[in-house]
Amino acid sequence: MTQPDHGGGGGRPVLIHDPSLRDGHHAVGHQLSREQLRAYASAADSAGIPVVEVGHGNGLGASSLQVGRARVSDDEMLSTVRESLVHSRMGVFMLPGWGAVRDLKRAIDHGVDLVRIGTHCTEGNLAERHLGFLREAGVDAHGVLLMSHMASPQRLAEECVRLVEYGATGVGILDSAGQYLPGDVAERIAAIRAAVTVPVMFHGHNNLGMAVANSVAAAEAGAGIIDACARGFGAGAGNTQIEVVVPVLERLGFRTGIDLYKLLDAADIAERELMDTPPTIDSIGIVSGLAGVFSGFKKRVLEISKREGVDPRDVFFELGRLQAVAGQEDLIIDVAQSLRAAGGAREGSRTRV
Amino acid sequence: MTQPDHGGGGGRPVLIHDPSLRDGHHAVGHQLSREQLRAYASAADSAGIPVVEVGHGNGLGASSLQVGRARVSDDEMLSTVRESLVHSRMGVFMLPGWGAVRDLKRAIDHGVDLVRIGTHCTEGNLAERHLGFLREAGVDAHGVLLMSHMASPQRLAEECVRLVEYGATGVGILDSAGQYLPGDVAERIAAIRAAVTVPVMFHGHNNLGMAVANSVAAAEAGAGIIDACARGFGAGAGNTQIEVVVPVLERLGFRTGIDLYKLLDAADIAERELMDTPPTIDSIGIVSGLAGVFSGFKKRVLEISKREGVDPRDVFFELGRLQAVAGQEDLIIDVAQSLRAAGGAREGSRTRV
Repeated sequence: MTQPDHGGGGGRPVLIHDPSLRDGHHAVGHQLSREQLRAYASAADSAGIPVVEVGHGNGLGASSLQVGRARVSDDEMLSTVRESLVHSRMGVFMLPGWGAVRDLKRAIDHGVDLVRIGTHCTEGNLAERHLGFLREAGVDAHGVLLMSHMASPQRLAEECVRLVEYGATGVGILDSAGQYLPGDVAERIAAIRAAVTVPVMFHGHNNLGMAVANSVAAAEAGAGIIDACARGFGAGAGNTQIEVVVPVLERLGFRTGIDLYKLLDAADIAERELMDTPPTIDSIGIVSGLAGVFSGFKKRVLEISKREGVDPRDVFFELGRLQAVAGQEDLIIDVAQSLRAAGGAREGSRTRV
Repeated sequence: MTQPDHGGGGGRPVLIHDPSLRDGHHAVGHQLSREQLRAYASAADSAGIPVVEVGHGNGLGASSLQVGRARVSDDEMLSTVRESLVHSRMGVFMLPGWGAVRDLKRAIDHGVDLVRIGTHCTEGNLAERHLGFLREAGVDAHGVLLMSHMASPQRLAEECVRLVEYGATGVGILDSAGQYLPGDVAERIAAIRAAVTVPVMFHGHNNLGMAVANSVAAAEAGAGIIDACARGFGAGAGNTQIEVVVPVLERLGFRTGIDLYKLLDAADIAERELMDTPPTIDSIGIVSGLAGVFSGFKKRVLEISKREGVDPRDVFFELGRLQAVAGQEDLIIDVAQSLRAAGGAREGSRTRV
C-alpha cells in the first residue's frame, strides 16, 4: 500500500449491491440481450460482487409500451442471470402497480435471493402487501424509497420504520434525481439508522458529480448497503461507479470483499459489451439534478420545450418547484405553456441555483 | 430556489479559473484550432468566467516532438484568445525548463493577465527566477505545485511560503494524479492557508470520481481559487467539471458571479466543438489515481506492458510505490521487466488499494 489508510471506516464491512443490469437498462431502452446479461453477470460473480440485480429499468412487470418494452422477458432475464451466478445473490426490483404478486411468485420460482420493493418516498404504505407476501414466502425483501430528496430526514425515517413493520429486512433511499450533496445524504442516513435496526441502503445518481462522495458519506453515516454500477451504467447522468467507489471505500477503511482487478475487468466488459458510451453529465443532467426532477423526463421536456419555444432548463426548474414526480408527465405541457405565456423565464437563471 | 441554502460558504466569493483550453489540450493531442479556441473563449467570457487559461497542455514553450507539437503556436493561441475576451482575464501556464523567460516576455506582449509557474511539489525553488521576473514586470503571477499528493501538508505549506517570497501573488496545489479524497484536500489547503496570506488555489482531476467533492472541500477549507473545465475537458479522467462545480458551490453558499445558463451553453459548445467525447473514468484512470501516478504515463505503460507480457495495472502500482514522476518514463521498462522476471504481480490485487 503506497497510500495511507485513512481508517474512517474502521474495517466495517459494506455490502455492494450492483443494479447495472436493471438501472443500466434505462440507458439502452431496456434492450440488453441474454448474451449481454450473461457476460456481465458472470464477470460480476467472478469479482465477488455480493448482489447482482437484473430486470427492466422500472422493475418486474414494467415492460410495456408506456415505458418501453424490454428485449428479453422477465422470465428470460431471471433464468439467464440465475445460470450465470455462482457466488453472487440475484436481486430484483419491483414498483407496486408496475409489478404485482404474480411477478414476485415468478421471481421466487426462478430462485431470486433478494427482492426490493420501491415506492415514492412518502408512500411506503403501497409496499405493505408485497413485503408481507415476501415475508410469508421467506424471501429476503427490502423496502426502498424513491425521489427521497422530496421528504425530510424525519419523514424518511418514519417511512422506513413502517417498511420494517411490513416485513422489510432492509430499507433505504434512492437519490433518483441525483439531487443530494454529501451533507444531505449523511443527515438522512443517520436519521434512518437511528430509527431502525435492519441494514440501510443508499443508491446514488451522478447528476451533480457527487455519486461517489455521496456514497462514501452514506457509508460513513452508517449505511451498510451501497448501490453502484459498472462505469455508472444507469439512468440519466448514471449511478455511482462501482469500480471507483469500491477502492475508495477500501482506502477509507471499509471492507467490501471484492477483488479489485476482477472488478475492473467486469467494468471493462460492461463498457465494451453493454453500453454505447459510459454516462457523462450533460447540461440537462445538471439541471434535473439541481431541480430535483427525475431525468426520465428529459426526452419529453426537450420535445415539448422545442414545440412551445421555451427554454427546457426553465421547464425543469419549474417542474422542480411543482415537485413533479414520474407519472405526472402531463405537467410538462402545462408548465411549458405557462412559461411561454409569461414570455419565457420567470426569473433570472442565476437565482435558480 | 427549491433547494435549501446549506450556507456552508457564508456567501464567500470563490474565483473560478478555467484551464479548458490548456489542460483540455492533453485530451486532443494539443490540436485545438484557432476557431475552436475562439468559440470556447467567447462563450466562457459571456458566462462571466473570471480567468480563461490557454496554451499547450504542458504550457508555454512546451510544443515539441517529445510531448507533442501543438497545432497552433503560442503566439497564435494568445492572440486568438486575447481577441475573444472582453471581461475574462487571460491566463497562461508555464513549467520552467519547458518554457523560459523569453516565453513569458512574449505572453506579456500579448497582454496576458495572469501567469502560473508550475513545479513539482517539492521543487518550488525552480520557480524563483520566473516569479521574480514577473514581479519586476508587474504581472500577476501564481506559483503552483504539481503532483502535490507526494508531499505532506506541512511541506506543501513551506513550499508555498517560498513561492510567495519569490513574488507569487497566489499559490496552490494540483492533484495531478487524481489521487486525493476530500479529507486529503481539506488538510492540505488548511495548512497552506495557515502559512500564507495570498489566495490559495486547488486544481482537481476526477480519477477517483472526487473532483467536484474535492473542489468543494478545498473551498470549504479556504481555497479562494478553484480550477474547473467544461465537461471536465482535461488530461486522463478529466478535471473538475466547471458547469457542475459552479452551481454546487453556489448551492453551498459560495458566490462565483457566473451565469448558470450561459455556463451550461459554454459547456455544450465545448462538448460539441472541442472534444470527441467528454472524459470518463476508465480502469487505467482509476489505477493511476489509486497509485498516484500521472495519467500521462498511460500510453507507454500499455505499450510496454503488452510487449513484456505483464499486467499494466501492476506496472502502475509499482510506479506509484517508486514515486515516479513525469520525465522518468524510462522507469516503466525497468518496472515491467522486473515484474516479468518475478512472474507477474508481486502481491494479490486486493491488498493494493
